[in-house]
Amino acid sequence: MTSKAIASKDLPRLAAHAIRFLAMDGVQKAKSGHPGMPMGMADIATVLWTKVLNYNPANPDWLDRDRFVLSNGHGSMLLYSLLHLSGYDLPMKELENFRQLGSKTPGHPEAGHTKGVEVTTGPLGQGISNAVGLALAERWLAARFNKPGHQIINHHTYVFAGDGCLMEGISHESCSLAGHLRLGKLILFYDDNHISIDGNTKLSYSDNATARFSAYGWHVQKVNGHDQAAVAKAIAAARKESKRPSLIACRTVIGWGAPTLAGSHATHGSPLGQDEIAATRKALGWPWPPFKVPRPVLNYWRSALVRGKKSEGEWNRKVSAYRKAHPTEGAELQRIIAGKPSTAWQAPLNKLRRSLLKSAPDTEATRVASGMVLNAVGMAHPDLIGGSADLTPSNNTRVKEYEDIAPGKFSGKYIRYGVREHGMAGIMNGLAQHGGVVPYSGTFAIFTDYLRPAMRLSAIMGAQVIYVLTHDSIGLGEDGPTHQPVEHYAACRAIPNLYVYRPCDVRETLECWESALRRTNGPAALLLTRQKLPTFPGTGKGGVKNGGYVLADTPKGLALKVVLMGTGSEVQLAMEAREQLSKQKIGARVVSMPCWEAFEAQPQAYRNRVIPPRVTARVAVESGVELGWGRYLGDKGVMVGMKGFGGSAPFDKLFKHFGITSAEVVKAAKSAMK
Amino acid sequence: MTSKAIASKDLPRLAAHAIRFLAMDGVQKAKSGHPGMPMGMADIATVLWTKVLNYNPANPDWLDRDRFVLSNGHGSMLLYSLLHLSGYDLPMKELENFRQLGSKTPGHPEAGHTKGVEVTTGPLGQGISNAVGLALAERWLAARFNKPGHQIINHHTYVFAGDGCLMEGISHESCSLAGHLRLGKLILFYDDNHISIDGNTKLSYSDNATARFSAYGWHVQKVNGHDQAAVAKAIAAARKESKRPSLIACRTVIGWGAPTLAGSHATHGSPLGQDEIAATRKALGWPWPPFKVPRPVLNYWRSALVRGKKSEGEWNRKVSAYRKAHPTEGAELQRIIAGKPSTAWQAPLNKLRRSLLKSAPDTEATRVASGMVLNAVGMAHPDLIGGSADLTPSNNTRVKEYEDIAPGKFSGKYIRYGVREHGMAGIMNGLAQHGGVVPYSGTFAIFTDYLRPAMRLSAIMGAQVIYVLTHDSIGLGEDGPTHQPVEHYAACRAIPNLYVYRPCDVRETLECWESALRRTNGPAALLLTRQKLPTFPGTGKGGVKNGGYVLADTPKGLALKVVLMGTGSEVQLAMEAREQLSKQKIGARVVSMPCWEAFEAQPQAYRNRVIPPRVTARVAVESGVELGWGRYLGDKGVMVGMKGFGGSAPFDKLFKHFGITSAEVVKAAKSAMK
Repeated sequence: MTSKAIASKDLPRLAAHAIRFLAMDGVQKAKSGHPGMPMGMADIATVLWTKVLNYNPANPDWLDRDRFVLSNGHGSMLLYSLLHLSGYDLPMKELENFRQLGSKTPGHPEAGHTKGVEVTTGPLGQGISNAVGLALAERWLAARFNKPGHQIINHHTYVFAGDGCLMEGISHESCSLAGHLRLGKLILFYDDNHISIDGNTKLSYSDNATARFSAYGWHVQKVNGHDQAAVAKAIAAARKESKRPSLIACRTVIGWGAPTLAGSHATHGSPLGQDEIAATRKALGWPWPPFKVPRPVLNYWRSALVRGKKSEGEWNRKVSAYRKAHPTEGAELQRIIAGKPSTAWQAPLNKLRRSLLKSAPDTEATRVASGMVLNAVGMAHPDLIGGSADLTPSNNTRVKEYEDIAPGKFSGKYIRYGVREHGMAGIMNGLAQHGGVVPYSGTFAIFTDYLRPAMRLSAIMGAQVIYVLTHDSIGLGEDGPTHQPVEHYAACRAIPNLYVYRPCDVRETLECWESALRRTNGPAALLLTRQKLPTFPGTGKGGVKNGGYVLADTPKGLALKVVLMGTGSEVQLAMEAREQLSKQKIGARVVSMPCWEAFEAQPQAYRNRVIPPRVTARVAVESGVELGWGRYLGDKGVMVGMKGFGGSAPFDKLFKHFGITSAEVVKAAKSAMK
Repeated sequence: MTSKAIASKDLPRLAAHAIRFLAMDGVQKAKSGHPGMPMGMADIATVLWTKVLNYNPANPDWLDRDRFVLSNGHGSMLLYSLLHLSGYDLPMKELENFRQLGSKTPGHPEAGHTKGVEVTTGPLGQGISNAVGLALAERWLAARFNKPGHQIINHHTYVFAGDGCLMEGISHESCSLAGHLRLGKLILFYDDNHISIDGNTKLSYSDNATARFSAYGWHVQKVNGHDQAAVAKAIAAARKESKRPSLIACRTVIGWGAPTLAGSHATHGSPLGQDEIAATRKALGWPWPPFKVPRPVLNYWRSALVRGKKSEGEWNRKVSAYRKAHPTEGAELQRIIAGKPSTAWQAPLNKLRRSLLKSAPDTEATRVASGMVLNAVGMAHPDLIGGSADLTPSNNTRVKEYEDIAPGKFSGKYIRYGVREHGMAGIMNGLAQHGGVVPYSGTFAIFTDYLRPAMRLSAIMGAQVIYVLTHDSIGLGEDGPTHQPVEHYAACRAIPNLYVYRPCDVRETLECWESALRRTNGPAALLLTRQKLPTFPGTGKGGVKNGGYVLADTPKGLALKVVLMGTGSEVQLAMEAREQLSKQKIGARVVSMPCWEAFEAQPQAYRNRVIPPRVTARVAVESGVELGWGRYLGDKGVMVGMKGFGGSAPFDKLFKHFGITSAEVVKAAKSAMK
């Protein structure tokens, strides 16, 4: 067949084949990748992207575009094909460079790296949760901006997911919440292909997926995923349903079109091989060589540019009218369109700082301090929305004036996530990636374990997501070792690009929040105490932004003999030890280290001023495991920390029991000085 | 009412009240805890423990006892009350000491700490998953031991769970698999009390729970949780159903019986207060003081001892008959009853070691080496059962002769966990805690993030669970940063009591497996490569058991100037660097550090021999973040590792790109020597 012989009635079918061959050839050339999924979902993707999706490939950042998420991100060639075909800035040479160093086409789609990729996916179930966040952001911004006669925010979120995504626990958490909240503009395509890596899904999976989603309050349909007309009809029905999110279970054949391998898990994660690809070319009537899409087919796809330009143009006119009619909201909308962060929260935060510098409570729990900061900035920061995984009264995450985001009601600023830490974090990633939203939310520090895969993705994407993590040590007391983080500071610090804050008092808490709110290109984790901590002179004067700083230098007349380093609730022990050492004429300096990552980002000269290399007598005190402190302790330093799991008792008894006391710090200081 | 006035018809009701008051009074005395759940589930617990549960309080370790799991572990006073009342060795003074240092009644139930506690619970959703593992262990041991006329293994697993457990993603994973496998002897009581910490569950939760579990293939019922007769009937129906696990959704009132607080989330996590407790005493007709249970009620409970003795006695007779009829299997059964680990795997492992010492492949991936070990010991180790979270062909976890454990068919030794890492780990914890089973299973190292909460519980419980974690670095290649662990070695090492192994070649892999199989009191994580690694002279001679050892000392004639430390795939870089340094007349020693935890457990003198304090020039090379290495690097050491997330490209290109090469190790060595 020549390009000229292509009949227009064949275009939809050939448009899907274009995806199939780009996927097959891309994977074959890379000798690595997953061709089966793109081949199986090509028809669905073609209908969605050519008939339904409202987007403008020429402007991937258009605020009111429909969002598309590939939750089964291993099928990345599907997304790269769609982006290239529809006219995004992703040239064919990038597809030919699939999975190569420096290409725009990495193994799994990476937001921020490839234009048009909304969220970074691959770890299964994450994309579904991101999509819930994106859909929630849409509804929230609609409630915030739309006015009678001005429908400014009005788009859908579409997500592709496979059996693996649906098996993962996080899909339960986020889809249950999506059903509860009635996110009617979320549409999930389930690639029901009966195949996973081990073989037929029958090996491990018997769920009635549509019944499961019905139980979550979703609208459900089943469709033949290779019948484009049927798929179009199902999408129309899903879009018509405005009160419930929609699941479209698409029966597909993995590797569809491959004569001998279609339907086999052999197509899942490996190249099909030259022979099979040649046979597929013959079987599907696709005579063109690899990475060649015939002009009529490409034109068919590229009509997206025309539609997109028109759509965005109409929207821009709506925005102009809106800005005239509602200048205040219009200015805010314009800020969001321009991708600028709000600074409106800075003034009330400064006010609180001044007040706390003048007079702070003698003692306060940092979780309470965090609540104070939130109550100061929450209403002033227009993009900030909070929540908690069913620990609101413990996390102090709810701003007094906040109203709940409730089923079908999206004008509030507080999300009741339920006992769904992992889903919460995945949803926050989606909220943050949408634009116009800065999400924070709370759980116990111990439960970072539950949400860790999503937290890692916040860090990879550089998403501004703020994790409020209270009850951050054995200071939690009676709940015992199952609820006491001992390894979690280290485990969080291990994640690249995550800023981990552990403030020592109310004023450091304010500064940690300030840093987190300013850090618009990455996530922050705030570790906060359940128990009260004293307020120290010297905090609140900008120390936190350097990550570590001299909170109290050697008392007058004493030479510096030992450096006492600590974070959070243990800084007080260092301060007490400094006093006790002073009485014994030993000069000790206390270094508060609320954020290692910020400290490491300082010039070496600054770090050497704070922890002088010549002073080898050093003590670190922290109610966690030693892992990581070696960097600062050096050869002679001594750690005062936890050596194993905690215990169940009132918190003061536990600190004594585990030897995390000022007396032990003094002892350690003397030992380090030897 | 006096004790004498108690009519026998009132005993079931009063038996439940005994739980309620112990819970109320225990929490009140501790000034901390969760009274509402025990009060709400007291009737269900009473029916189960006095009418149904087959157990012997005098012997908590009886192998064929029914298992009971409190997944909503915050209601620990319910379990402690049950243990005390039914006659376990848990004196009343321990209940009076609830949540105090050193008591047997910590905030959340801890297996190994309190007799009668099957698994450590508290982090929500874990207990449900453990219960699936316990129920699976029962069916597997039944298939292994039962013979016509000899039903030796035949017990049920009962689990209590609340809304929180059902909201957690892990409940989806493990319950979906339980339905798939048709674990007909698993019975889950859902405490449907409509209350969570934030308030009414309506705030965040609209699931139709019974419909959801039906979709998993479960048998479901709804019952009034305060109607003891109805509960008994529901349990009977659930026990009659042998093909499907059963959900009994029990509508209960949290804090049932408290005149003003019943039904309120105020009863969830705080003491009720003296006034409310006094009013409850009046309302429920319970005149006895705190921690006093009237004799007739106690007698009613303690009949469990009589029933238990009889039951266990009958079972022991069955076992005697079995041992006569089937002496080989009987001896194995007796070993398991005695709690003795199998040693049958040692001989074939030794044989493989001898063969590998004689002639090992020049290069091999450690994941393949792991498969070799498993194939050597898998059938020989009678308790060892494996699996994978849908990555069998990648994890090499399936022993050739293993058959699958399939729906209703439990005689195999391989579990197809599906894409359910977290559920898998929770289920393994249950398998391990049952007795008679040593579980291992595989996933990618990156997905330790997904299963981390359960892995931590393996460590807390000291359960022998073996995690096979392949594709352990950027060596994974094209799949890219979402699938490349860089922080996971550190994050795993941070967990107390978890032994983290990273072998450098085929023979070290064998020794790591050997250590893991010998470590019957705690979990192990094996980090294994996708890519091939060279085999080194010097491995396979017992080095691994010390955790770190001198793999190659300075070449003859050269003084020791620098210590090169590494693990896994980077040991080869240290070895190459040693050669290159040697050519420049610099004496370098290579220390392989496959298991830090085992190294730390060696005497200081040994550790100083391996890494001499006087040699301050040290280099660590590992394809992960530096966190933790500071301990070994000291003041002058230099790390060659990852500074951020990985990339998508063929693996050899990535190692070069990120500067993890022998040339960089040489450079670092010279820098450290300055």
